[in-house]
Amino acid sequence: MLMADVTATPTMVTDKGLDRVIIGDSAKSFIDGAEGVLEYVGIEIDDLARNSTFEECCYLLWYDRLPTADELASYEKDIRSHYMLSDNIKQMLQQTPKDASPMHVVRTLVSALGMEDPECNDQSIEAEERKALRVLAKTPAIIAGFDRHRRGESLIDPDPNLNIATNFLLMLNGEMPGEQTARALDVCLILHADHGINASTFATMVAIGTQSDMYSAITAAIGTLRGPLHGGANERVMRMLQEIGSIDAVEGFVTGRLERKEKVPGFGHRVYKAYDPRAKYLKTFAETIADETGNHDLYEMSSTIEGIMEAAVGAKGIHPNVDFFSATSYYSMGLAIDLFTPVFALARNAGWAAHALERHEDNRLIRPRCNYTGPHGAPYVAIENR
Amino acid sequence: MLMADVTATPTMVTDKGLDRVIIGDSAKSFIDGAEGVLEYVGIEIDDLARNSTFEECCYLLWYDRLPTADELASYEKDIRSHYMLSDNIKQMLQQTPKDASPMHVVRTLVSALGMEDPECNDQSIEAEERKALRVLAKTPAIIAGFDRHRRGESLIDPDPNLNIATNFLLMLNGEMPGEQTARALDVCLILHADHGINASTFATMVAIGTQSDMYSAITAAIGTLRGPLHGGANERVMRMLQEIGSIDAVEGFVTGRLERKEKVPGFGHRVYKAYDPRAKYLKTFAETIADETGNHDLYEMSSTIEGIMEAAVGAKGIHPNVDFFSATSYYSMGLAIDLFTPVFALARNAGWAAHALERHEDNRLIRPRCNYTGPHGAPYVAIENR
Repeated sequence: MLMADVTATPTMVTDKGLDRVIIGDSAKSFIDGAEGVLEYVGIEIDDLARNSTFEECCYLLWYDRLPTADELASYEKDIRSHYMLSDNIKQMLQQTPKDASPMHVVRTLVSALGMEDPECNDQSIEAEERKALRVLAKTPAIIAGFDRHRRGESLIDPDPNLNIATNFLLMLNGEMPGEQTARALDVCLILHADHGINASTFATMVAIGTQSDMYSAITAAIGTLRGPLHGGANERVMRMLQEIGSIDAVEGFVTGRLERKEKVPGFGHRVYKAYDPRAKYLKTFAETIADETGNHDLYEMSSTIEGIMEAAVGAKGIHPNVDFFSATSYYSMGLAIDLFTPVFALARNAGWAAHALERHEDNRLIRPRCNYTGPHGAPYVAIENR
Repeated sequence: MLMADVTATPTMVTDKGLDRVIIGDSAKSFIDGAEGVLEYVGIEIDDLARNSTFEECCYLLWYDRLPTADELASYEKDIRSHYMLSDNIKQMLQQTPKDASPMHVVRTLVSALGMEDPECNDQSIEAEERKALRVLAKTPAIIAGFDRHRRGESLIDPDPNLNIATNFLLMLNGEMPGEQTARALDVCLILHADHGINASTFATMVAIGTQSDMYSAITAAIGTLRGPLHGGANERVMRMLQEIGSIDAVEGFVTGRLERKEKVPGFGHRVYKAYDPRAKYLKTFAETIADETGNHDLYEMSSTIEGIMEAAVGAKGIHPNVDFFSATSYYSMGLAIDLFTPVFALARNAGWAAHALERHEDNRLIRPRCNYTGPHGAPYVAIENR
């Protein structure tokens, strides 16, 4: 049996990006890019953004249905009981180099949670669910804690009376966020909770495929999300806005990019040719958050960019995407730009765990082959004769 | 464009394990299970085990040819200059819970190397090579350091005059290993350096696919290797030997397993139907190491098991594999059983980096689809009506 050197036969498929491969069944999320549809377990994302909460969407994605009031209360209580980081993890956080790239920190500290989990060698589905819950509960404190540490400020303990979004902003900024601002983050987390089998979600499936554990799976996913081809689009939007600098410079900047046929960050999407269904509701929020946080100028700049782009390329199916509106929302909430991708990770914990748990129940080792192109039967030449 | 809900067409392939998928070209290692062949860049593994060194094989796998004497000296010097852990990483090691599972520790601490790398945001192939070299150089100190920490002993600094294998045993045991013992580890590292596109190596490719970095890729690989379907086979061999306990109990134990049609750890291999080419040379070493380290009984037990198994199932193509002989070798060297998989990771750093670097030069995002089996158009039912 040849493993590495495979001659393509009708039963073998060469596919470097797995574009033509269906990796199995999934009942988590459905995407129709042509029609601009995203559903979590059959419910439209816009409906969820308007009416649901991040915690409820996590439950929906993990258990394939909306919780009853009692189930939701119990699930939230469980999450909140795990908000607090151990002294050991806090100490690790406070020892991280202050100039570290935040995604390296989040990957390392989430991995470290596995070192102190007494269930780390229990791979039952129940134990894996509990690990996923701990990661979901503790990631906000890791991100906020690192940011405060690098700013030279003391860590703020989580408040178990608050939901994930409000609590994160409290731990980050040291004060209670405005109601609209906290709800805006909650909506952003809902919108980023799952998106089919993307590259980072697939990374969790590769790890789970060997019967490895939730910490290994999510650590792999965080590292995969880190790449600029996956996470990071809203960071580019915000850096563009900073580069433009003022409302007067918008028109020159955008038309210049269009004339040079350069991309404008936050517009167009590989999947969505219709309007990004995640952008719809967030857009209506953008002005409110900007005003609540004293960032009206930022809203005006975005709004002007959107107007110019819609007139120029809207007819070609290039519209603002979720990153365009989440960028200014995050910035208004007080998030440093390099925390945008960590917050993406915080939200996607929901989907990563959902797919890892789903795969756990019907698992298979994932191991493709390659087409070996090297030599055969080469001699080991002694070093003095090379 | 549908992303998640895909109806299989002649151009789409459903393949949960990617058994029928060729993920691209590779010139690193070649496996022929029927003939019992494993080659690194065309050179037979048995030739390399007898004549080469682990460092030379790393060079071979990364640069697709054997180094000249000057190149090897320079490469080794470079590796050795990175042996030492920073004070920060040493402190993190000494704060890890003593009962942590070592693979969680290795995954976390290798990830932590990324936090302190000044090049962490430079994704050029040259910077990625340097990161791979740092991981390769520092992993031994992480494994040995954690083991000493949990035993309550002080960390031992690496000696830049020693090769990776000798240095690891010195840092682990606090004394210079015998020459044969150090060479035995060197051989084990060579034998585990690469093995085609296995699950953990594929994990590095998924991470690199988003243009993420070497730390993310290797962290994903360590987490994937952790699963019992991938790493861990030699740990099961050693636990079996401990369960048997003495030479007198061998025959009853093995024939019992055979009668009940249960597997005997360390025998048979999913890929190799002929004799595992990695086991050949290691086998000849096993007695020497056992004797040098005062573990002759262990050798006799293994040898008796092998004799019984060969007579019973050898004709069916079930032979001892590399894990059977590496288990007793590692144990004789003084390694705790739960360090066997971390040492596998240490060796496989060579192959993980080789494949990640190869993919980096001809990259593609890896993103399969799934067959969506959930509902569509489900209503968001208000919580009071559920």
